Amino acid sequence: MERQRMITQMREKGKTPENQLRNEEILSLQEKDFRLSMLKMMQDVGNKLEAKMDNLQETLTKEIQDIKLKQEEMQNTITEIKNSLEAANSRIQEAEERISEVEDRLEEIMDAEQKREKRLNTNEESLRELWDNVKRTNIHIIGVPEGEEREKRTEKIFQEIIAENFPNMGKEPLTQIQEAQRVPYKINPRRNTPRHILIKLTKIKDKEKILKAAREKKQVTYKGTPIRLSADFSAETLQARREWHDILNVMKGKNLQPRILYPARLSFRFEGEIKTFTEKQTLREFSNTKPVLQQILKELL
Amino acid sequence: MERQRMITQMREKGKTPENQLRNEEILSLQEKDFRLSMLKMMQDVGNKLEAKMDNLQETLTKEIQDIKLKQEEMQNTITEIKNSLEAANSRIQEAEERISEVEDRLEEIMDAEQKREKRLNTNEESLRELWDNVKRTNIHIIGVPEGEEREKRTEKIFQEIIAENFPNMGKEPLTQIQEAQRVPYKINPRRNTPRHILIKLTKIKDKEKILKAAREKKQVTYKGTPIRLSADFSAETLQARREWHDILNVMKGKNLQPRILYPARLSFRFEGEIKTFTEKQTLREFSNTKPVLQQILKELL
Amino acid sequence: MERQRMITQMREKGKTPENQLRNEEILSLQEKDFRLSMLKMMQDVGNKLEAKMDNLQETLTKEIQDIKLKQEEMQNTITEIKNSLEAANSRIQEAEERISEVEDRLEEIMDAEQKREKRLNTNEESLRELWDNVKRTNIHIIGVPEGEEREKRTEKIFQEIIAENFPNMGKEPLTQIQEAQRVPYKINPRRNTPRHILIKLTKIKDKEKILKAAREKKQVTYKGTPIRLSADFSAETLQARREWHDILNVMKGKNLQPRILYPARLSFRFEGEIKTFTEKQTLREFSNTKPVLQQILKELL
Repeated sequence: MERQRMITQMREKGKTPENQLRNEEILSLQEKDFRLSMLKMMQDVGNKLEAKMDNLQETLTKEIQDIKLKQEEMQNTITEIKNSLEAANSRIQEAEERISEVEDRLEEIMDAEQKREKRLNTNEESLRELWDNVKRTNIHIIGVPEGEEREKRTEKIFQEIIAENFPNMGKEPLTQIQEAQRVPYKINPRRNTPRHILIKLTKIKDKEKILKAAREKKQVTYKGTPIRLSADFSAETLQARREWHDILNVMKGKNLQPRILYPARLSFRFEGEIKTFTEKQTLREFSNTKPVLQQILKELL
Repeated sequence: MERQRMITQMREKGKTPENQLRNEEILSLQEKDFRLSMLKMMQDVGNKLEAKMDNLQETLTKEIQDIKLKQEEMQNTITEIKNSLEAANSRIQEAEERISEVEDRLEEIMDAEQKREKRLNTNEESLRELWDNVKRTNIHIIGVPEGEEREKRTEKIFQEIIAENFPNMGKEPLTQIQEAQRVPYKINPRRNTPRHILIKLTKIKDKEKILKAAREKKQVTYKGTPIRLSADFSAETLQARREWHDILNVMKGKNLQPRILYPARLSFRFEGEIKTFTEKQTLREFSNTKPVLQQILKELL
Repeated sequence: MERQRMITQMREKGKTPENQLRNEEILSLQEKDFRLSMLKMMQDVGNKLEAKMDNLQETLTKEIQDIKLKQEEMQNTITEIKNSLEAANSRIQEAEERISEVEDRLEEIMDAEQKREKRLNTNEESLRELWDNVKRTNIHIIGVPEGEEREKRTEKIFQEIIAENFPNMGKEPLTQIQEAQRVPYKINPRRNTPRHILIKLTKIKDKEKILKAAREKKQVTYKGTPIRLSADFSAETLQARREWHDILNVMKGKNLQPRILYPARLSFRFEGEIKTFTEKQTLREFSNTKPVLQQILKELL
């Protein structure tokens, strides 16, 4: 559109002389007038074409100048963009280096964490063993009503239980009580069972003698009311022992003579041998090779 | 400026014939010369305009070619920039993914850390309890001059203290000494107080009997010089007990019969009941509901 | 090339009239024909130049339009690039902020880790002390054949060893055995040495009396066969004691009367004084000031 308009405009400015002088007029002119007309016409043709050319030149030159200005402007923008892009690339470079640094430190942290995790596991295992060790001479008495120890010393309750249930045991264990108390210190008002009584003896042998006698007597009482005597373990060992519970009961029914050994091992008689397992995983692997055992333990492992 | 210079230049090259032939000259010419002049003039006008046009064409064409070259150059730069920008975007993309990965791992680490933090707290609590347990049958004797144990066994010093202060206690605790020694092993030359003597008894009951007798006697001596007997706790429990100290003293003054219970609980009589607190926080909450108590404990909680 | 082709093309289109009419022809024309010819020639010159100019105008205008179109296209691309670059910068900005956040959290984690590391060290030290404490009344009996304890109680083996080697020791330590058993529970089938027997006594004094008697007797036996009695320590303390071993032997040869004190300190007589060291590092620093000692310990520190 723009281009068409421009061409039309230029044609109007520079009309050819053909429409101004007719042939008849030329032929009727006096020689003198003809000559001057010719001169004039020639000048007119030259002037008009020249004007037209100047006009074209001016128009195009202006166009070109505009283009050049625009080009210059764009070039500046491009230069700006290049600089900006360079700056962006520098920032990316720097960011990448920071990320690498962070990744390296993360790797270090994770390595350190893995080591600490192992140490934490070792410490927890060590703590569990220490607690089991500390609790190894303890007996828990479960079921003695709260308040009994207000009238007589807790130690006395234990002595009475021994006298009531195991009259032939002898006096020795009774002289070796290091500690006798309710645990925990505080009564939890939401529990309506009496707290345990904790008896700490001096010798493991005495504890074992009493617990063995209790197992054999089946029913232990305090003032005629049934109570229970049990060994004392760390929370973790107690949990580990409980996890053998179902297997133990099934094995009892199958006459495998199962027992839980200290601290939390399962032992039983199988194919004429005593087998001992620390983890369900190893028992599972063993039972996979013994179809009879696998049948007995199915869904328990 | 550039444009103006160009136009002027072109006008000089293509002058019209009007200034070369005057009208008079034309009229004075012979017919033959006029005709040849006309022909010549016409050719000149044509040639000059044509030359001018060629010149214009050449000039503008050159301008346009320059512009096109420049444009091509810019286009190349733009293409380069586009590629470079695309590469930058890829790097950003990759960096963002690495950051996301790092953030995820950080999240995992923080989760793992939180779990380890809990385990660490649990272990520390467990260690504290173990130490308190281990130290539960211990008595610290404070104030016996260094060197006394060189002449007689440390155990003998303890036996003499019992005999000197509690002549009616009986012999039993004295036969139950598991350990008797100075602590720590090394004398710190910057401290000028004698090291404590640590007595480990077998039964908690014996320890409690001796410490109770010491409290009742108020002043305990060794060879007539005042000394102190005290229970033994883990560093953490000792600190926790010390934190009740100021409150204990104020409560004593107000006849609330305060006591520190094992391991570090504050117990006192209030409104006819025995109240027991493990932490200052819970005591603060309780006292907020009891204006009398709040008044007594103001600035101590 | 392109430019040259264009100029040639335009010249052919706009030929000057000089080759169409010869001078002779002009001179031979009748006045009327001359006048009409002049008019015609003038019109032709004008038309041809005008056509040429139009052609030039059209050609250049087209060129310029093409350039402008291309320029517009480039401008659009540049605008796109600017927007894209702006977006990239925003992403970089955001990525940098995420990195900073990650770095901060990393710093926090590392601080927290450092604290946990310290607590872990403290806990391990505490565990080591607890184990040393627990094991302090223990005696290890090394070298009694496996199976002996099947015929008689493990405790009985210990009593026989005392009777066989230290007949004058008296009965007291024997009544204070808290525990007597093989350790570990499980026989390791790859070891062909018998497991140790662990005896836990009540009093440290009794343990020390027995170990001292064993050291003095040099050779301890069970049923005439040599065995060894040794103290019991945590794994860490045992390791720390072993690390003094070479130095101890060299010092013995130099009559420095070296001893390992509880739990793992090296003690020896030097320049008339008893020196005690907990770590090799401090012994090294001390020996650096004593050329005689440095000579003795060379290559051992």
